[in-house]
Amino acid sequence: MQVEIINTGSELMLGFVVNTHQQWLCRQLSDLGFNIERQVAVHDEALAIQQAVREAIQRAELVITTGGLGPTSDDITRDLIAQLFDKPLREDPKIVADIEQFFAQRSRQMPASTRVQAMVPEGGVVLWNNHGTAPGLALPTPRGWLVMLPGPPRELRPMFRDQLVPKLAQWFSTPVPFVCKSLKTTGLGESFLEERIAPTLSGLVAQGLGVGYCARVGEVDVRFTARGDDSAQLVAEAVGVARELLGSHIFSETESDLASVVVGLLTRQNHTVAIAESCTGGYLANRITNVPGASAVFQAGLVTYSNAAKIEFLGVQPSTLEQHGAVSEATASEMALGAQRRTGSTYALALTGIAGPSGGTSEKPVGTVFIGFATPEGVVVHRFLNEYDRETFKFYTSQQALDILRRSILKVAGISLS
Amino acid sequence: MQVEIINTGSELMLGFVVNTHQQWLCRQLSDLGFNIERQVAVHDEALAIQQAVREAIQRAELVITTGGLGPTSDDITRDLIAQLFDKPLREDPKIVADIEQFFAQRSRQMPASTRVQAMVPEGGVVLWNNHGTAPGLALPTPRGWLVMLPGPPRELRPMFRDQLVPKLAQWFSTPVPFVCKSLKTTGLGESFLEERIAPTLSGLVAQGLGVGYCARVGEVDVRFTARGDDSAQLVAEAVGVARELLGSHIFSETESDLASVVVGLLTRQNHTVAIAESCTGGYLANRITNVPGASAVFQAGLVTYSNAAKIEFLGVQPSTLEQHGAVSEATASEMALGAQRRTGSTYALALTGIAGPSGGTSEKPVGTVFIGFATPEGVVVHRFLNEYDRETFKFYTSQQALDILRRSILKVAGISLS
Repeated sequence: MQVEIINTGSELMLGFVVNTHQQWLCRQLSDLGFNIERQVAVHDEALAIQQAVREAIQRAELVITTGGLGPTSDDITRDLIAQLFDKPLREDPKIVADIEQFFAQRSRQMPASTRVQAMVPEGGVVLWNNHGTAPGLALPTPRGWLVMLPGPPRELRPMFRDQLVPKLAQWFSTPVPFVCKSLKTTGLGESFLEERIAPTLSGLVAQGLGVGYCARVGEVDVRFTARGDDSAQLVAEAVGVARELLGSHIFSETESDLASVVVGLLTRQNHTVAIAESCTGGYLANRITNVPGASAVFQAGLVTYSNAAKIEFLGVQPSTLEQHGAVSEATASEMALGAQRRTGSTYALALTGIAGPSGGTSEKPVGTVFIGFATPEGVVVHRFLNEYDRETFKFYTSQQALDILRRSILKVAGISLS
Repeated sequence: MQVEIINTGSELMLGFVVNTHQQWLCRQLSDLGFNIERQVAVHDEALAIQQAVREAIQRAELVITTGGLGPTSDDITRDLIAQLFDKPLREDPKIVADIEQFFAQRSRQMPASTRVQAMVPEGGVVLWNNHGTAPGLALPTPRGWLVMLPGPPRELRPMFRDQLVPKLAQWFSTPVPFVCKSLKTTGLGESFLEERIAPTLSGLVAQGLGVGYCARVGEVDVRFTARGDDSAQLVAEAVGVARELLGSHIFSETESDLASVVVGLLTRQNHTVAIAESCTGGYLANRITNVPGASAVFQAGLVTYSNAAKIEFLGVQPSTLEQHGAVSEATASEMALGAQRRTGSTYALALTGIAGPSGGTSEKPVGTVFIGFATPEGVVVHRFLNEYDRETFKFYTSQQALDILRRSILKVAGISLS
């Protein structure tokens, strides 16, 4: 069974926004066992939308479109698809009432243009929108169903989960068993990682295991997939091989971000961490506080951008800053110890470096970073050279700091490292 | 002239990564005057890739593929396209030398698998990779060119800019003039925004102006496009209408993020800001420090998650926390004043609220936020209800805080607000 996704929106084709729908829908549908064969994005233009839909419904049992159901004049998907299917549009009084209620609840006036969202093509199934005014719509096709979802993610996502998923179960028989597992690793490049595991996995690959690699800055995902009755067994064996050969380079088997993993470890050990950031400017504190429940292990983050702030909030000695500079082993060490002392936390991480694009010297070029790590036993400082653009630099540096903390906790807990 | 983009990668179809290539390439190509008609993503599978390429080269003068040029076994794009075009692959000794040098410079051993990246289809043009080991390749097609770019963004982007752009100028004559301008607004919903400007714009639309809206949480982009000799004039007139009718709801005419706009305003006024964050956990400090040059206006960010940290670093009174709670007008006020006093900054913003998913009460439900704003004249506290998931909550709340600061600076500078 084939699934295709069509994302409509000139803002996509002009590159003004990132298409987050593709990733999200593919993830959800894959987990339900559906195979997404193709995703297409086109302009908000009649010909382009109709051609993409016409092609997709000939190939795929399930076609999902996103966007173009809103109230403004460039929202044309509903009309174009009704036209393509030769189905007249009729106003649905229940949807009109729904939209009126949406505005009444928010004590806001209802713009006249929103009424167009109550139009439903003949034979269409309505997917109610509990987070906005544009309902989704589904129409039968010769091979299966075409589903139109609204563009805003906070409307599309609950609609998909709460309303479309139960309908998919009615419309389509259970797909062939499909198992997909992704392991997140850090500290090994993509080629080295494959060299380490591929020879041992070759027997499983011959039995139908799929192996994929996805390299990003600071981490590589290893992905195992299999289809059919033996799929769970095949993937489990591959995971066993990877665990054996990659050891603690694997930081997550559940697609968790490294920050979630670290918050989880701290929570289990009943330990806390404080963060002192200069070059990463709050990025690491933000990653940690993105994790629900972080408040139990995270006391405070001090984003001390200026020297004055390093002195005022972390007790760094003015003489240290004068003699060694803000980007130095000595400053990183004092920042970490200051954050630990003033918050009373078990651990503290301090990050000071030159994010660029300017500010480098021959001795300390752009990308130079010192990460100070204070534990109950003392403080150590690591030096790195992270030559990336500003935002990648922040991610990569925060990743290194989190991994220093992760490996330290594992070591204290007596878990062997590789 | 038509352009199509084909993104290959099972990690895309399984929803493990977001397709940032589409957005980036579409943005670059649009700015060069190219019209991207269609973007397609498919699995790393022979049939899917070859079918997508076969269709695209029949329709489009320029086809760009991304991904599948790396060293691992799922990198199959180069081979498949050579096969489709019936061109034998030959090893290019200059590329081999390049790859060897890449590893030598980094004092790393060269994995044998990377050598496959030196294979070039007969008649292929090589695009050198200065940031990795996989070169890009270009092949002539009956209608124009097919270009293969590597998957990692930090390899693809400089290769596109430094090597492909000059080639595009050689290969294709100057496209029809195309002007595209996007205005970023905040504080007005999409429908209301259209109601306010559409009637006045209708004359320009009749002359060929395109108008698009893109609504995100906390901001709506209004986009004007035109093609042809009068395009610059048409778009300029539309921008004039929008300025007149939307006033200070427009915060950027250059696609700048609100944080960049605020850093720019502070820099021009020679003013500084400090941030005290609880519920946003460093998100706002991180947005501000993403702006190059932020260090001139940003002293410090205090991520005071715990009550103890609010007392220690901001001087919040324990009695205030006891009587009113951490999420209260009184605490927000003391946090802002404390951050301002201890950093000596002109302004301070303090954010305290309940991000959720848990922690709400009937009096202060999840989503409740107090934003304290300290100026040289005193302090004001705004209360909001931001009912979003955790990460959207952080963005939306930081957006409100930045807009409070922006409007205050505009007012002080004597710029009228609407």
